[in-house]
Amino acid sequence: MPTFVVIAHTATTDPSFSLDDLAGGAGRLDVLCRCVNAAFFLSHDLRRDVRLHLVIRGDVTLTLEGSSLRRVAPDERNIASHLRSGLAAAGEAVGHQSVESGPGIHASRLTLEEVLADVDGAIVRLHEGGGAITEREPSPGSTFVLSDHRDVTSDEERFLREAVDERVSVGPRPLHADHAITIAHNYLDTEGFRRY
Amino acid sequence: MPTFVVIAHTATTDPSFSLDDLAGGAGRLDVLCRCVNAAFFLSHDLRRDVRLHLVIRGDVTLTLEGSSLRRVAPDERNIASHLRSGLAAAGEAVGHQSVESGPGIHASRLTLEEVLADVDGAIVRLHEGGGAITEREPSPGSTFVLSDHRDVTSDEERFLREAVDERVSVGPRPLHADHAITIAHNYLDTEGFRRY
Repeated sequence: MPTFVVIAHTATTDPSFSLDDLAGGAGRLDVLCRCVNAAFFLSHDLRRDVRLHLVIRGDVTLTLEGSSLRRVAPDERNIASHLRSGLAAAGEAVGHQSVESGPGIHASRLTLEEVLADVDGAIVRLHEGGGAITEREPSPGSTFVLSDHRDVTSDEERFLREAVDERVSVGPRPLHADHAITIAHNYLDTEGFRRY
Repeated sequence: MPTFVVIAHTATTDPSFSLDDLAGGAGRLDVLCRCVNAAFFLSHDLRRDVRLHLVIRGDVTLTLEGSSLRRVAPDERNIASHLRSGLAAAGEAVGHQSVESGPGIHASRLTLEEVLADVDGAIVRLHEGGGAITEREPSPGSTFVLSDHRDVTSDEERFLREAVDERVSVGPRPLHADHAITIAHNYLDTEGFRRY
């Protein structure tokens, strides 16, 4: 099962933000909404075999499970309303205990280190400086880690150098995080862009 | 230069819609916003060599030119505000004359037939029933035609059968229109997923 981990640097963890201001007052929460869209949505269906962790400011992690997601629409505003409920629930999360804010959406205080310590399969960093995905051939069981619209911090960079099995690029142009997720899915869907 | 043509069936052409209700009252204008995002946005940059036509209900066509787009942000709400200005300008468009509503955004009354009559290069329909993109190998000069979240009408289907040079699929799973655009770009960026 592919897992995606998005390291979010600017999105708010305060659930009082306005749905009318996702790209402003909510600290570019729109970027994370698009990552949710790319990770889960198929035409009139959801990818049930996907997990997504949004690690926000090292403070709150929202984990979405395709197997149990319900009533999520693909638009940014609807997704943001679900993430807002998750952020509100995070206030009750203590230690490694997560709180379910809605079907398939769990809020926790897990750090990036803790999230990655708990995954199966290879940890693959999606990064424009990595080797071509067609050469590195990540498996569907991989955990794909990527940053939002900001570069990772120097602390995150140091940690990732230790934790990541390989760095993989999905193309020669610097892409938005959600576009990289879409392409990674397509790579897996088509068995390495070769067969379908 | 790749051109994308999205056939939109439910989005409103009435510019009085609320930016708070893109997926409802605006008739799933959110779908078109995400197509604009996928067609043009790179990380901290825009694809300048792209043109996108949104053919809305056979009534209004909004044409976006990457070469001259300005002040467009990647979030659905911001893109919708630009499309709304385009729809407002469409009221002044007569015959084949288009009206520029902002840098790089033109509103016209062109029909799907008229849009496709005016393109250079092959007309490629992105469709899940088409041949694999890796087999059909569309060129960067192609015009890629695809539908929004609805199937094309029987009239559109009849017309497309005549007008389209080939049908191409970007993968085995039915995808959202914007995800298909992202993958088509990636195919072109990587010279057929082979080199980068």
